[in-house]
Amino acid sequence: MNWRYAAKKMNGQIVPTEKVDTILESIRLSASSVGLQPYDVILISNHELKGKIHELACPQPQIVEGSHLLVFAYWTNVDAAKIDTYMQLIADTRHVSVESLTPFADSVKGGLLSKTPEDLAVWASRQAYIGLGSALIAAATEHVDATPIEGFNADALDKILDLPAKGLRSVALMALGYRDEEKDFLSKAPKVRRSRNDFFTELA
Amino acid sequence: MNWRYAAKKMNGQIVPTEKVDTILESIRLSASSVGLQPYDVILISNHELKGKIHELACPQPQIVEGSHLLVFAYWTNVDAAKIDTYMQLIADTRHVSVESLTPFADSVKGGLLSKTPEDLAVWASRQAYIGLGSALIAAATEHVDATPIEGFNADALDKILDLPAKGLRSVALMALGYRDEEKDFLSKAPKVRRSRNDFFTELA
Repeated sequence: MNWRYAAKKMNGQIVPTEKVDTILESIRLSASSVGLQPYDVILISNHELKGKIHELACPQPQIVEGSHLLVFAYWTNVDAAKIDTYMQLIADTRHVSVESLTPFADSVKGGLLSKTPEDLAVWASRQAYIGLGSALIAAATEHVDATPIEGFNADALDKILDLPAKGLRSVALMALGYRDEEKDFLSKAPKVRRSRNDFFTELA
Repeated sequence: MNWRYAAKKMNGQIVPTEKVDTILESIRLSASSVGLQPYDVILISNHELKGKIHELACPQPQIVEGSHLLVFAYWTNVDAAKIDTYMQLIADTRHVSVESLTPFADSVKGGLLSKTPEDLAVWASRQAYIGLGSALIAAATEHVDATPIEGFNADALDKILDLPAKGLRSVALMALGYRDEEKDFLSKAPKVRRSRNDFFTELA
């Protein structure tokens, strides 16, 4: 975690498929509130499409200098049907009846469907950030550079990817690639982090 | 990551200090938008205090069955002074003048201080979730169980910990301890996760 930083310039080298798969798997297996995983991840390696995103939604160079771009997009349509689909997945995975899950389903529905659409969006987007945190560590473990990006035009990106029709809203990007040590002056700069004393309070 | 799950029952065994330190360090070193780390983490091992939190803010058993409780609390007072303090930290760490950072400081201030208080809170709480995602993986690597908890009474907890006076608002908890394999029926249940085909869309 000392090695990793958000590379500002990447060198175009392609991240091998097996490393990308490991990073994706770390997202898929990461924790999620009540286990629902209310977001999708879109993996983009198509050069033309990355160019379009770079042009219309996010001018940061890593979009095109990285070999892969991950788009974290949360569900805008969390409803009873989505929760029922999840219950069916639990039933199938654990070989139990869906009926036996009714108390859990009711509890999840009660907790989530009483939220305002705004609060539901905040909750769903936070879950995507747990996945993003996992991906950053998995990438560092694989010695792949990963730059998370929040500063982009979500409306433009969602339009390019046709996300609204799929009940999705983009919330964060992650470029995967390799740092350009020559051109990125930050690649050799010491990491800046708040001290333990400042960041943590211990109540023992 | 297949080993980890959110333990529902813990056995009271104490997590060694060096493992807790490793988990904390993974949070401290995790990524954060513009590097600001706009949240604090409160580490609670005091038995009486955990009991009070269990009684008044969160009835989940892991609060008292785990040996340590982490409270992720985002800053409610992100302002120019906080950003200037961060610039000073960069200057000190990288041995550059604060003046040389003025363009970066202006960019960060422009981006953040134009947000509404609500959007700023959403942004800050998402950063805390990146740290939470890191901590979950670090804990699993150390074979420590970590249960993230969103369902708690934040008003009650903030009052117990006097967080509003410190410009903090709790957003997530994490109990650290060891699973009680006898009492937690989920400890041996297969992990439920959406399939790769369902979770990921690949645009190559």
